[in-house]
Amino acid sequence: KKTANISFSNRGKTLEDELNDSNEYYLSNNIAVIHKKPVPIQIVNVKYPARSAAVITEAYFRSPSTTDYNGVWKGLYIDFEAKETTSKTSFPLQNIHEHQVKHMKQVIEQDGLAFFIIKFTTIDRYFILFYEYFEKKWERMIAGGRKSITLAEMEEMSIEMQASFQPRLDYLAALENHLQSLL
Amino acid sequence: KKTANISFSNRGKTLEDELNDSNEYYLSNNIAVIHKKPVPIQIVNVKYPARSAAVITEAYFRSPSTTDYNGVWKGLYIDFEAKETTSKTSFPLQNIHEHQVKHMKQVIEQDGLAFFIIKFTTIDRYFILFYEYFEKKWERMIAGGRKSITLAEMEEMSIEMQASFQPRLDYLAALENHLQSLL
Ligand SMILES: [Mg+2]
Ligand SMILES: [Mg+2]
Repeated sequence: KKTANISFSNRGKTLEDELNDSNEYYLSNNIAVIHKKPVPIQIVNVKYPARSAAVITEAYFRSPSTTDYNGVWKGLYIDFEAKETTSKTSFPLQNIHEHQVKHMKQVIEQDGLAFFIIKFTTIDRYFILFYEYFEKKWERMIAGGRKSITLAEMEEMSIEMQASFQPRLDYLAALENHLQSLL
Repeated sequence: KKTANISFSNRGKTLEDELNDSNEYYLSNNIAVIHKKPVPIQIVNVKYPARSAAVITEAYFRSPSTTDYNGVWKGLYIDFEAKETTSKTSFPLQNIHEHQVKHMKQVIEQDGLAFFIIKFTTIDRYFILFYEYFEKKWERMIAGGRKSITLAEMEEMSIEMQASFQPRLDYLAALENHLQSLL
């Protein structure tokens, strides 16, 4: 049901939807080529029915060895992981896989750009957190410290961005502003 | 059965295996971060048995919208498609998807490196073909010309490389030599 009251609220859209929409916009406007990677699946059984497409009848989800999204933007290699949290006060580190962290570190070492896009769904706020900052908090956890990044820390370390209309989440504009400000 | 006569022949190894081995070598030696993308699957049905992992019971292969491999090497975005042919005389263009070609063009426009790694399995020869050269032959086909790239054309337009031991296919060294020669 459409209403005249168009809102940029996140209700009903997942962060993944919002990013896929944004990436489509970037692609069709020749701004960047960034895609979500397919979910890795281990295929155990496939049937080949006569006159129709092969059917996978047994398969299992595998844990990803890299991140959700990668691609190229103005010659820069872009690599990020998207995460939502319902918490209003902190971003939990538990559902980040160690091999994803390792992957991002490897990306940085090859002069790629690695970051998280984090959505606090309850308070409708979005942050871009560079791997270099994330790493400090990840290491704090490894050393026995807190298992999350507080909202205050997030505000201090990351780039906050607003959802908009087109593109839905202009994370490349946010990155560009930030990179410009460093010059 | 092991023999003393170690050969670098391709028998038994697919190009994909060879490239995966090479990428593992690159990764563990901090040379580059390049991964094969998972095969895209459309999941229709999933069962969640008590006390065990989710099982995908119905799914279908989707045609890939991008290429096989991508990643980052010394700040460069790398994107390629791997193809084998059993032909001794030409590389057929039929099994290349139009959306893969479009993707590679988009990558070039963002200053990424896009290419094919092509193995002539019968004659055991390997070529790196930059997208820019491939495109000419693709357009020839679109214009009604031949539906393949002849071996002679391949020799003229691409970088030939030899299989070796470690890494199995040192395509980044081959690229580096070529890029150096352009300076
Ligand atoms: Mg994610
Ligand atoms: Mg392939």
